[in-house]
Amino acid sequence: MEKVEDQNPQQEEDQVVNPWEVSAKDGGKIDYDKLIDKFGCQRLDQSFVDRVQRLTSRPPHVFLRRGVFFAHRDFNDILDAYERGQKFYLYTGRGPSSEALHLGHLIPFMFTKYLQDAFKVPLVIQLTDDEKCMWKNLSVEESQRLARENAKDIIACGFDISKTFIFSDFDYVGGAFYKNMVKVAKCVTYNKVVGIFGFTGEDHIGKVSFPPVQAVPSFPSSFPHLFSGKDDLRCLIPCAIDQDPYFRMTRDVAPRIGYHKPALIESLFFPALQGETGKMSASDPNSAIYVTDSAKDIKYKVNKHAFTGGQETIEKHRQYGANLEVDIPIKYLNFFLEDDAELEHIKKEYGAGCMLTGEVKKRLIEVLTEIVERHRRARAAVTDEMVDAFMAVRPLPNMFD
Amino acid sequence: MEKVEDQNPQQEEDQVVNPWEVSAKDGGKIDYDKLIDKFGCQRLDQSFVDRVQRLTSRPPHVFLRRGVFFAHRDFNDILDAYERGQKFYLYTGRGPSSEALHLGHLIPFMFTKYLQDAFKVPLVIQLTDDEKCMWKNLSVEESQRLARENAKDIIACGFDISKTFIFSDFDYVGGAFYKNMVKVAKCVTYNKVVGIFGFTGEDHIGKVSFPPVQAVPSFPSSFPHLFSGKDDLRCLIPCAIDQDPYFRMTRDVAPRIGYHKPALIESLFFPALQGETGKMSASDPNSAIYVTDSAKDIKYKVNKHAFTGGQETIEKHRQYGANLEVDIPIKYLNFFLEDDAELEHIKKEYGAGCMLTGEVKKRLIEVLTEIVERHRRARAAVTDEMVDAFMAVRPLPNMFD
Repeated sequence: MEKVEDQNPQQEEDQVVNPWEVSAKDGGKIDYDKLIDKFGCQRLDQSFVDRVQRLTSRPPHVFLRRGVFFAHRDFNDILDAYERGQKFYLYTGRGPSSEALHLGHLIPFMFTKYLQDAFKVPLVIQLTDDEKCMWKNLSVEESQRLARENAKDIIACGFDISKTFIFSDFDYVGGAFYKNMVKVAKCVTYNKVVGIFGFTGEDHIGKVSFPPVQAVPSFPSSFPHLFSGKDDLRCLIPCAIDQDPYFRMTRDVAPRIGYHKPALIESLFFPALQGETGKMSASDPNSAIYVTDSAKDIKYKVNKHAFTGGQETIEKHRQYGANLEVDIPIKYLNFFLEDDAELEHIKKEYGAGCMLTGEVKKRLIEVLTEIVERHRRARAAVTDEMVDAFMAVRPLPNMFD
Repeated sequence: MEKVEDQNPQQEEDQVVNPWEVSAKDGGKIDYDKLIDKFGCQRLDQSFVDRVQRLTSRPPHVFLRRGVFFAHRDFNDILDAYERGQKFYLYTGRGPSSEALHLGHLIPFMFTKYLQDAFKVPLVIQLTDDEKCMWKNLSVEESQRLARENAKDIIACGFDISKTFIFSDFDYVGGAFYKNMVKVAKCVTYNKVVGIFGFTGEDHIGKVSFPPVQAVPSFPSSFPHLFSGKDDLRCLIPCAIDQDPYFRMTRDVAPRIGYHKPALIESLFFPALQGETGKMSASDPNSAIYVTDSAKDIKYKVNKHAFTGGQETIEKHRQYGANLEVDIPIKYLNFFLEDDAELEHIKKEYGAGCMLTGEVKKRLIEVLTEIVERHRRARAAVTDEMVDAFMAVRPLPNMFD
């Protein structure tokens, strides 16, 4: 039996993780083991990494082999079916609340791009402009503008246009999608969403209405132009683990309305520069590296704001070495430095005090600058016509090739 | 200041009137004066009837001159604007929960047809198949089928296809309509809908999500194919007074999102054959005359089930006369016998005991049979192509002619 325990924020909580808030107890670190236990998902262990490598005949993505994607629901079922020759589709998304994305926002898209390439499967990307209009009190027009701007950043991650459909809720809700929203809504009581999401009576009804909107891209019948006659197609959702509540609800409802439960593969949160106590905050520009940051910005932010595990003095550092457990440059390199051997070398030297914080930061600045520069170039090449093409409601005849 | 008092069903209530329940205290009659006071709408007095007659240069509809439409909100504003040469549009609707409509269901449509003809204005008719799917636990497909069947009965009332757009929510929700739904939902708290509609925590979130769906046809921007560039167009909603809660909510929200408040013109409930204690019940076929009833059915139902104010014996009847206050045949004739002089004559003779119950029933059977037969012939002439034509999303270039 799957655990579908509700998260009631009225209760005393060690840590709060939901789509709108991620905070550890007393400013400490998120306890991911506790989170897995609480949410009832499974740890993604090494056997999965090996199996993905074998099935796709390519090296597993750095996010997979380093445990960035660390938890799952029914990913084994997806792989079992794939091994029998049955494909699936990917679903991920973004709430377009800001103009510029930070590196944490890119993580699910970078990983989804790898999954698309490795498994050769179609992908739907939901831009929840309706959600952000309601939660952030943006106008409809501003939410839609941000959705389009964010779509450019997403496209810049390199998705295959012959396999990818990007949609905004304001554009796409209706028809088969709306019918599925109604089917889901019928199966979920108000008390249930209060238990899962912690809504209160003073929250507006738009919030109460929204969970089905994020739920239904999990069902192939929500996309008749893509998956007509393929109601049996399974769905795999790569996302950060704070989105799990939406899909716990979705998985609870799915069999009652005749659909497969979507499978999930869930990531850690990308830590703030100031330390690993939660997600980065869009409201504090110095807490994150943005894809719009210049080389100079990156250098400044890393040197000035990155929390490190280095010792106070060079003498002490040489003697005790850096505390890698809390060191943000090491954590960032763990996400983005692809060379396993170099990463091991840095961790060993830094941990032993042979390498200084400044040297590690210097390497991190190089790595981040390269990623951000590469993204900037790719984004600059994304035209309005390309956005229109990705967002056009159209069949994708070669999506499984 | 408009009164927007909530109706809290947890409180002790004399009578309950909401979109799902109409019941008087202790099985008595609905007190419409109390209802007007409670809801905060206005009584539609004789000056309105005279003014409508003058503005439209035609006799007022029987439902208007006999007080069937007895209450309103801002109908004066509609007439003021009309007098200045500014047109408006009509919005009414139906929840397609059953195959066959009864005479009570036809009342708003008969009256709306008169308003459309008299004022020469466009009309949108919403079929809330999504609502019925959620409240009556019908499948999506069955709700849509019933919506189409009901559309035939509605079309049979004689609406002008060059001025009328009929839509089902499952077909039409999306785009500009969905954007307005989100705008409305942002302005209404959960506590507010509990106060207005009496939802509980065990109700599903589809119910909580629905009020904005019924709200937004009040705004012309929900129909860009009809009213593009006419955001200032006013809306008049003819409906039974049990729908008032939806539009109280809508009127509360409208100015906050930049729209006119819709105006309302509201009817009494058509009484059940068994007596005037509420609306007719779809679950008891003998409580109502259906548009599918045969002449024989009508004769049987009126003779067998119509509650009368006649006396127990002919002797007593001759002596005391009939109690017209509770007599259903008289009430039905008040709705459907168009000849004012004949109605007055019957009431006088019957009330004085000169006319017997059987004679009044005989006249009622004639009147109802004629209406039902006329409806049946009109409905039989409605083809699937006509339904498609009324429901096509299309401009109506002559809608104000």
